[in-house]
Amino acid sequence: MQSIAPGIWQLTIGQPEEHTPTRHRAFAPSADAMSKLPTVDQAPFDLSQIKTKQTARGLLIEIPLEASDELYGLGLQLKSHRQTGKKKTLAVNSDPVADTGDSHAPVPVIMSTNGWGIFVDTLRNATFQCASNQKVSTDTAREQTDSDIAINTEDLYAQRALAQKTLVIEVPHVQGVDLMFIGGPDMVDAVKRYNLYSGGGCLPAIWGLGVWYRAFGRFTQEQVLDMAKHLRDRKMPCDVMGLEPGWQTKAYSCSYVWANERYPDPQQLIDDTKAMGYKLNLWEHAFTHPSSPIYDELKEHSGNYEVWKGLVPDFTVQKAFDIFSDYHDKNLVSKGITGFKLDECDSSDFVYSDWSFPLLSEFPSGMDGEQYHNLFGNKYMQCIDDTFRRHNLRTCSAVRNAHSLASPFAFVLYSDLYDHKDFVRGVVNMGFTGLLWTPEVRHATSPEDLVRRIQAAMLSPQALINAWYISNPPWKQIDRTLNNDGQMMDNWEELEAHCRSAFELRMQLVPYLYAAFADYQITGNPPFRALVMDWPADENTYDLDSQYMCGQDLLVAPMFAGETQREVYLPAGRWHDFYSGKVHEGEQTLTVSATLDEIPIFVKDGTLLPLAKPVQHIESDTVFELTPKCFGENCRDAKLYEDDGVSFDHQQGKFNIVTLTADGKLTREGDYGTVRYVMGDA
Amino acid sequence: MQSIAPGIWQLTIGQPEEHTPTRHRAFAPSADAMSKLPTVDQAPFDLSQIKTKQTARGLLIEIPLEASDELYGLGLQLKSHRQTGKKKTLAVNSDPVADTGDSHAPVPVIMSTNGWGIFVDTLRNATFQCASNQKVSTDTAREQTDSDIAINTEDLYAQRALAQKTLVIEVPHVQGVDLMFIGGPDMVDAVKRYNLYSGGGCLPAIWGLGVWYRAFGRFTQEQVLDMAKHLRDRKMPCDVMGLEPGWQTKAYSCSYVWANERYPDPQQLIDDTKAMGYKLNLWEHAFTHPSSPIYDELKEHSGNYEVWKGLVPDFTVQKAFDIFSDYHDKNLVSKGITGFKLDECDSSDFVYSDWSFPLLSEFPSGMDGEQYHNLFGNKYMQCIDDTFRRHNLRTCSAVRNAHSLASPFAFVLYSDLYDHKDFVRGVVNMGFTGLLWTPEVRHATSPEDLVRRIQAAMLSPQALINAWYISNPPWKQIDRTLNNDGQMMDNWEELEAHCRSAFELRMQLVPYLYAAFADYQITGNPPFRALVMDWPADENTYDLDSQYMCGQDLLVAPMFAGETQREVYLPAGRWHDFYSGKVHEGEQTLTVSATLDEIPIFVKDGTLLPLAKPVQHIESDTVFELTPKCFGENCRDAKLYEDDGVSFDHQQGKFNIVTLTADGKLTREGDYGTVRYVMGDA
Repeated sequence: MQSIAPGIWQLTIGQPEEHTPTRHRAFAPSADAMSKLPTVDQAPFDLSQIKTKQTARGLLIEIPLEASDELYGLGLQLKSHRQTGKKKTLAVNSDPVADTGDSHAPVPVIMSTNGWGIFVDTLRNATFQCASNQKVSTDTAREQTDSDIAINTEDLYAQRALAQKTLVIEVPHVQGVDLMFIGGPDMVDAVKRYNLYSGGGCLPAIWGLGVWYRAFGRFTQEQVLDMAKHLRDRKMPCDVMGLEPGWQTKAYSCSYVWANERYPDPQQLIDDTKAMGYKLNLWEHAFTHPSSPIYDELKEHSGNYEVWKGLVPDFTVQKAFDIFSDYHDKNLVSKGITGFKLDECDSSDFVYSDWSFPLLSEFPSGMDGEQYHNLFGNKYMQCIDDTFRRHNLRTCSAVRNAHSLASPFAFVLYSDLYDHKDFVRGVVNMGFTGLLWTPEVRHATSPEDLVRRIQAAMLSPQALINAWYISNPPWKQIDRTLNNDGQMMDNWEELEAHCRSAFELRMQLVPYLYAAFADYQITGNPPFRALVMDWPADENTYDLDSQYMCGQDLLVAPMFAGETQREVYLPAGRWHDFYSGKVHEGEQTLTVSATLDEIPIFVKDGTLLPLAKPVQHIESDTVFELTPKCFGENCRDAKLYEDDGVSFDHQQGKFNIVTLTADGKLTREGDYGTVRYVMGDA
Repeated sequence: MQSIAPGIWQLTIGQPEEHTPTRHRAFAPSADAMSKLPTVDQAPFDLSQIKTKQTARGLLIEIPLEASDELYGLGLQLKSHRQTGKKKTLAVNSDPVADTGDSHAPVPVIMSTNGWGIFVDTLRNATFQCASNQKVSTDTAREQTDSDIAINTEDLYAQRALAQKTLVIEVPHVQGVDLMFIGGPDMVDAVKRYNLYSGGGCLPAIWGLGVWYRAFGRFTQEQVLDMAKHLRDRKMPCDVMGLEPGWQTKAYSCSYVWANERYPDPQQLIDDTKAMGYKLNLWEHAFTHPSSPIYDELKEHSGNYEVWKGLVPDFTVQKAFDIFSDYHDKNLVSKGITGFKLDECDSSDFVYSDWSFPLLSEFPSGMDGEQYHNLFGNKYMQCIDDTFRRHNLRTCSAVRNAHSLASPFAFVLYSDLYDHKDFVRGVVNMGFTGLLWTPEVRHATSPEDLVRRIQAAMLSPQALINAWYISNPPWKQIDRTLNNDGQMMDNWEELEAHCRSAFELRMQLVPYLYAAFADYQITGNPPFRALVMDWPADENTYDLDSQYMCGQDLLVAPMFAGETQREVYLPAGRWHDFYSGKVHEGEQTLTVSATLDEIPIFVKDGTLLPLAKPVQHIESDTVFELTPKCFGENCRDAKLYEDDGVSFDHQQGKFNIVTLTADGKLTREGDYGTVRYVMGDA
């Protein structure tokens, strides 16, 4: 056990593989920031407790747990929250149809309520048995099971309680691996430590915190512009306009070349939308079509299997990285494109088998398909991110796959799946292991469903309306077919008003959210967190998979269509209803209902919430007019983060910490010379 | 490439593992029968065509295909029929939620329309890429994809046609493997050859071809007897009465001890039901509860992980095999139990993770959990089968897992899943690789659904009504809750009559089916077959996954609830509607409808179908009264198989081949002295 960073110990077992997440990390650990976390004197386990064994299948690691250990993490787990009792095989997959570990973003990192974490430094599809199975014991006094005869499969197959909890990790195919043991002392400290070890949380371009709208895939340049105008006309705040596959001459696989028949003058579109305050985001995936200008150059630096007839570039080969980055720079980023949607870098054998390369593929770097699948999203993000960094520009983008050590990427995960509760569970779970996730909104089964989905999206890392398969905004017609037929609902303006109300709530919260992201970057504290992360000793938080913390002070509990009320657990302390101000004592479960315009939000007692006057879009020089709202008495000062919002100058100290006090004062400390926040007139 | 049996060649790559299907085979190859198949002079591939490579993940094998090769098999694939274009990772799993290769019974055997098969002799979870993926080629002239922009995920992710077809097999974790190349010359010959290499198809106890009824799990001895009487009173033919977990003191895991509170006098029940013509079948699984009399003895011969707090016996250890078999013999088989339902020897991480042992388990034989999972069903069947063989008794039983070389086991696979089309697809697919499968009937969504399901079950290997979670027959009340509340439907006698009609059709066909099973045993020809197996040159058969051949002469096309008509493809030849006698020319697709009492059946021209007068149950001395029906002119002779139906004496030649001629003559050849078939009066 070797200390490798403040509060992190590494155990090297056998001979680790050449290709691992740390070997391919994009960012150095934020060692300074780590040293500011509470000191941890020793590793959470000592060597004598850890059993390892080499088998024909790979490496087996057994770590004893306390009865009180409850486990969370493993990446974007959409199907379950608490991992204790689960067996998960981490594998990249776009369609996790069951709760077995498949994920857009599987991450071999697990966190315990007892304030420690473990990071398995592997690109293999490792299995985590989280106290899921019991070994045959030598103890002969065995519990007798109930002899009532079950008459349904749920009862028959229900999980039985275990006498003894063990975390068993199997890393297939390897002769060795590095394990990182992450200290707390508290759960949230272990999470922060992991994020800082990854390089710190991301700070997205500030406009990325506005509303996103992805336009219909078959739109022409003119139609995109019409939609952009329509949103402005209707006073629907929107920052990012996304183009779907139709912008390219070839998609599935991709040419990365503008399709002139639909986009005769891309520069004009970029300039026109920019003039209206939009940032243009382009859909793509990395599978490179034979007609692409970079195909021939990329070929020798790509995997030996095609995907949809395109190449799979090996981004760990510098030449492939550069070819891809240079092309994007010259043709897209330099022209004014501000971000990308990196689609399908996950994979799915559940859909069709030539989507994505086989696990048995070979890559020029020497990686096989299994390893590269786990790394693909990270390296693709790095390639695109790097292209913006050349211009001293931050992005806020989208991606379908990520792995470990990805905390510094301002890329948000999304999905083709659409179960609303799963989507909210994603917001709850992603924070354990350095990910961001959007419960994006596409169509809806009812106006209520649309509003409830939009409300949850607005209180997530990325406020995304993904209208790629409908030609009109979903609030004008929720039904996909009618929408594309141009038949709008009679009362669409009423539904639009509900959605506008949700959009405006988002825009009110932008300064608060930006401060939460700054905190993520500086301290590693995730901007969206499961309640168990902040209250790990409170058992009532262990299974809360549909409510979450947003920033330090807001507890969000989305409503779901068809449910007129829901339960919300309030942990220790006193809480204020965001809308009515009604006070509730903590450590109780409330049953709440909410009008269609309200998503239940509870504010920590003593919070000074810096609400902004909603703007339609956010520019580098946007100034927010603040009206802080005090919940309770003797409100704590509010801290905001002020910088240009788009460059990396803050890394050279060009930022301010702005302090608001309950008596209406605003002061700032720092080296950034321009004002972003002023007190409003309220 | 070494010839190891007539028409089968073995290629040994590297150093194969110690534990493989052939190493643990239960039956010797039927070499004599194999030599009667058409001669094949050379292996379907030569060594120079096969590429192999050792990787960190395991062994990679690439086999070039012809453009005309279409692939089928891989065990009980419920989600797809034609495997060409699919990527399948074979893994034992009770809940194959997607079409990725998980199965109750994954079998590493694949068959081509070009008349060859490949058997990979491994207990590993091998991956088969059946021309699913395309390598990057050196050919620079690439097909340009259509530039129309898809607006739904189905179109986006649709499988693209491949330029070049290759079968890629990856066997994980191994340093070597034996491949068996199976010659035809025709597809059905390759299938027969595989079955004979496995030891020949099974010949179940003849009563196993009657109707099965599994009674409510909470029934007492008295209630079981009442149900047995009820079925006789209502003239619902039934041979096998199945008891569910409630017969044991402990289930999940199992004690294998009668629960006296529900079953005060098991011997009386066995005797009473036997007197009424029933054969008693007992549910169990092999996970042995601490309270079981064999627990202590089994412990040292079991895997190191518990399942539902029970032991997992290592049946490859002779001692464990004997303990389990001896106990079953002494306490159950010797008392008159005629068969078992071997539940849950598959596994499911999709349900709860302590159902079944982890893949990383260790077994005393030296196998790991992955290997033992693949072998578990086979060895469990062998253990139970052997118990009956000691008494010179055949069984017909049920099992939830099987692997390769399982053709000789008279055990039928079943499932907790319930999609009717998937269930019928199972009947279509199982025949490629030596399996039997029942599309069992439990509840129904409508009376029509019940009848349609029962009809398909009656024309399958096992005619099973599995009423384990309802206390009354489903035809008295289809709704599960109402059924258990004792609220019968008003018109239940009408529905019962429809079901009786289906039961009686089954009983009419018993001699025909028994002959088909005898053929399975002698020649390896599966009693239920996909049409492509008999017409591999007819492309129209390639995707027929809801119609199948039953025996040599019947083409069955089940109806599904809610569909008033369906399409049926008739291959070359002339076909007769079973009911109306209407003649249809082959090589056309008919649209057929069917009254609720009819399941579409088409009879090959010239067939003399030996229909029997339905009996209520089948005994060793049951004599069937036959009324052969001639479909067409100049009907071919019909052949039937005559023996005692329950012993292995037939292996010493004690059987007759009975010939029926169109002019009403019945002759027999052979050494069996008792008459089972007589001509009826019709």
